[in-house]
Amino acid sequence: MKFASFTHAGRAGYGLVTDGGIIDLTRRFPEAPTLRTFIAGGLDRAAAVAGAPADFALSEVTLAPVIPDPDKIVCVGLNYHDHVNETGRTVTPNPMLFARYAGSQVGAGTALVKPLESDEFDYEGELAVIIGKAGRRISEADALSHVAGYACYNDASVRDWQRHTSQFMPGKTFAATGAFGPWMVSADEIPDPTRLTLATRLNGAQVQHTSVDLMITPIPTLIAYTSTILPLLPGDVIVSGTPGGVGARRTPKLFMKDGDVVEVEVSGIGVLRNPIVAELA
Amino acid sequence: MKFASFTHAGRAGYGLVTDGGIIDLTRRFPEAPTLRTFIAGGLDRAAAVAGAPADFALSEVTLAPVIPDPDKIVCVGLNYHDHVNETGRTVTPNPMLFARYAGSQVGAGTALVKPLESDEFDYEGELAVIIGKAGRRISEADALSHVAGYACYNDASVRDWQRHTSQFMPGKTFAATGAFGPWMVSADEIPDPTRLTLATRLNGAQVQHTSVDLMITPIPTLIAYTSTILPLLPGDVIVSGTPGGVGARRTPKLFMKDGDVVEVEVSGIGVLRNPIVAELA
Repeated sequence: MKFASFTHAGRAGYGLVTDGGIIDLTRRFPEAPTLRTFIAGGLDRAAAVAGAPADFALSEVTLAPVIPDPDKIVCVGLNYHDHVNETGRTVTPNPMLFARYAGSQVGAGTALVKPLESDEFDYEGELAVIIGKAGRRISEADALSHVAGYACYNDASVRDWQRHTSQFMPGKTFAATGAFGPWMVSADEIPDPTRLTLATRLNGAQVQHTSVDLMITPIPTLIAYTSTILPLLPGDVIVSGTPGGVGARRTPKLFMKDGDVVEVEVSGIGVLRNPIVAELA
Repeated sequence: MKFASFTHAGRAGYGLVTDGGIIDLTRRFPEAPTLRTFIAGGLDRAAAVAGAPADFALSEVTLAPVIPDPDKIVCVGLNYHDHVNETGRTVTPNPMLFARYAGSQVGAGTALVKPLESDEFDYEGELAVIIGKAGRRISEADALSHVAGYACYNDASVRDWQRHTSQFMPGKTFAATGAFGPWMVSADEIPDPTRLTLATRLNGAQVQHTSVDLMITPIPTLIAYTSTILPLLPGDVIVSGTPGGVGARRTPKLFMKDGDVVEVEVSGIGVLRNPIVAELA
């Protein structure tokens, strides 16, 4: 099943995405006002209404970030060898984690915003892992049973601000720079996420491509490591790292500018497409 | 005025701290269920009830983190010269920012937890700045008008996990390692935060001491820089950096262990006191 968050006629909601459009779950499950709270109650409840007629066409809603309000967004750096190599860094024995704030996110179709302060606005196509079941010190063996589903993520980065100090966070959490969508595909449809492939396209030209099985720290280990630090909660998001091909490491450099269109596609999930808008003073 | 968050008889609330105890604001302002939402509506509303008799003695409540649910906790690294020097690092032209997740916080009096995975559990006494008025790209000149108040913070750090990679976050957000309290003193009582002094004591012995005017990036610049990245919101917390004297840079090293008591005191605010408990397997 595919789950999306959206706004429709000024109201925030979430629903099931079907061939016919969106089945609104917000009104059918009033005890769960958001997709995050619905996930906490178990995705199985959606099956009973999966055959209902769609309430809206996809074109009638504005897609929101899959989880607009996660308790935690945990980003993973340097998690594919081709990206480690292009940065001139080295593989670390433990995963490299940093945070993005939830308020920096946008949904599919909404503009990613190149801030006034930078001309180094770069794409990072990634696979997002959405937690379904809470846990602390989750074992690698159990880890995938804690996953609600998967989505595409564009961890768009303001490279000069990322390099202001050793800590990446400022360049990784500008307003309207984290694209998360278009929807979550539930984990039952993706029993083995290492079989997925990930591609990023800028104005239609492919700029990143990888098989997810090339990840350095695999998803179960990311879940085990992160949940050792503090409990993972339903709706938490692990943004699992970008492969090689980022714009900052190309010759010449390839940054995103006003009017561009960037896409992140993950096989079996869909295409996350966002226009780029440069902020005006 | 002093504002605290607490739990009483299983109920979460917030109130005014007076000589006589706590005046419960939760029940007087039902439209604002939390201190964060009360701050968003303006602290002035509390003045009308400041003369009321206390509803609880301080000893009857469990203090919670001053803001249990901030949208953002922004931590600042290397913001006092004596700490920069002891780490062997160098001053950066821009402030060093990293994140802590809200779920890692505890209030005054509640145990800070040394995790199973580490014996390098260190104190970091800091001044916490709590945002009152939302803003993006706040000017340095206007910055202090966006502050609701100040509190003590102990940004307790798991040093080996902090050094797993270049990114500090894993060592800075273990469960029950961020002590925030005992209360917020409203900014009208602290017109110039550079005149504050900060001290940390471990088992009664002073281990850190600084005047806040020795901060490398002062509070108005921290607010201007952070709010350039994304909007600051009411209840957001900037944890403004620790001075020299941390346990990891002493000879011999001085880490916190089961049964210790750590205190962070800021002049004009109060004492944030927490016992240390070592987690059992």
